[in-house]
Amino acid sequence: MEIFACLDLSDGQAARLRDICGADRLRVHGGFSDAAALESAFVACEVVFGNPPPAWLPESEALRWVQLDSVGFGEYRGLDWPALGRRVTVTNLAGFFAEPVAETALAGILALNRGIDRLVRLQSAREWVGDPLRAELRLLAGAKVVLFGFGAINRRLADLLTPFGCSIVSFARDWSAERLDEALAAADVVVGTVPETDATVGVFDADRLSLLKPTALFVNLGRGSVVDEDALAARLSDGRLGGAVIDVTVQEPLPPEHPFWACPNTILTQHTGGGTADEVDRKIEVFADNLARYRAGAPLVGIVDFAKGY
Amino acid sequence: MEIFACLDLSDGQAARLRDICGADRLRVHGGFSDAAALESAFVACEVVFGNPPPAWLPESEALRWVQLDSVGFGEYRGLDWPALGRRVTVTNLAGFFAEPVAETALAGILALNRGIDRLVRLQSAREWVGDPLRAELRLLAGAKVVLFGFGAINRRLADLLTPFGCSIVSFARDWSAERLDEALAAADVVVGTVPETDATVGVFDADRLSLLKPTALFVNLGRGSVVDEDALAARLSDGRLGGAVIDVTVQEPLPPEHPFWACPNTILTQHTGGGTADEVDRKIEVFADNLARYRAGAPLVGIVDFAKGY
Repeated sequence: MEIFACLDLSDGQAARLRDICGADRLRVHGGFSDAAALESAFVACEVVFGNPPPAWLPESEALRWVQLDSVGFGEYRGLDWPALGRRVTVTNLAGFFAEPVAETALAGILALNRGIDRLVRLQSAREWVGDPLRAELRLLAGAKVVLFGFGAINRRLADLLTPFGCSIVSFARDWSAERLDEALAAADVVVGTVPETDATVGVFDADRLSLLKPTALFVNLGRGSVVDEDALAARLSDGRLGGAVIDVTVQEPLPPEHPFWACPNTILTQHTGGGTADEVDRKIEVFADNLARYRAGAPLVGIVDFAKGY
Repeated sequence: MEIFACLDLSDGQAARLRDICGADRLRVHGGFSDAAALESAFVACEVVFGNPPPAWLPESEALRWVQLDSVGFGEYRGLDWPALGRRVTVTNLAGFFAEPVAETALAGILALNRGIDRLVRLQSAREWVGDPLRAELRLLAGAKVVLFGFGAINRRLADLLTPFGCSIVSFARDWSAERLDEALAAADVVVGTVPETDATVGVFDADRLSLLKPTALFVNLGRGSVVDEDALAARLSDGRLGGAVIDVTVQEPLPPEHPFWACPNTILTQHTGGGTADEVDRKIEVFADNLARYRAGAPLVGIVDFAKGY
């Protein structure tokens, strides 16, 4: 069996992966001199670990299983899955990023409430403001929180919020627009963690954002396309919204001219929410576990259903 | 009875305080043309709300009760309390700041772990780094946390840490140096909330700071004098310490030349930790409750014991 690793690895990580693959032949995407050689190696592989270019998948007759090294799989949604799905199974890292992303969400929310972003900027200027800042600070305790999406990340965030005594309203896949709109109008904090699907693109359009209180915080950890970015930036810029924590944007890297960079009370976390120092090592262990299942003919963990979009 | 208000109030807050004082005469420190008139009004008062200049207290024969608008009372420690304490009772706002300070502590710790400080600086420069940042991020989940001081603030912080599954070691007034040193050597995060007393000044001296792991975070929310600031700045600057959240410093405002301003992985919160938008309103309500007790001859809440130092 040929296995193709399509992610950046240190020498130590590549050695660990080689151990895991054992007698199987491991090809690593960095080991090819040109794109054509790379693609022809890819199409000979039965198993892929990482996120290959989507266009390669229909070409790869030998391919049976792709273990993505992400939770998101939006770039593969456009493929002909009714046909491709007959021979290729895709698994993702569902749940893998719950702890780091939930911690980044809470870090961002607390930072805005407690003025950390402003204090960091003052520190760069060696400027002491002190007492007058205190009147601008807010508490998270007792806040009304809307969790839009209730998978691993927002479930973990709900855990982390427990001691704050927040009143939490969560929306899973069966959400209704009417209930959501009602909850948004009362919310102090809104946290979106949904993937890009036909049902989520543009959910937070200009009309829906206009329901939010001018003090509300908007947090987006799912995909940039679920929100109307221009409308969000406009509301932040003229103070019709209290602040935002934005981990994901439609364009990444965010272009230098994008309005988000200059929005007040806004923290751009540059799609680092899922990051941890041992992230790649942990991904390799997930692949190792699933590879053992694959070899044993057992059900894989984290199978993506492209028809349903998750 | 004459009551003296020694804190900055809006017109609405002054009106609320006047309501509370009722038939008693309220003097407000902003209403005097010169310092001599101010002091002579002060010495005629039986009750003071706020933090008057310490030198005024021995002069005020009529004074019976001072309701400080702070938790800290270090500036009054040098007075002759064995004598003064026979006629004057001092109460402070013990517990009042527990929620905001604990939230600022968690905000700062999570900010350092999740790179919020660095991301804010990048945002000011419109600079996208993205993925390479992820390998520098850490989780709070499962961290070893030392709480030095176990009054209202650190008890609340311990609550907030519950869902993170941290292993927490706390030190109250009966702390032993041996046990503290052992805990510090294992700590991922150290949070100090102790006031300035003879037993706490310089507790975190250079030797004790040297016990900390180079990845550890040091958080000081009590008083600046409990730590050797030069030793702390040196360890932060050369990477022998992972980071710091510093709310309190020996000199406030922090002088522009102080090394803390430029320390890496350091968040200076400028003694704002206790701040909230409704802080003064809430302080007035604490005073109102205690004033009702005073009028009724009931025990006051939050009496300071200057002999014990808390």
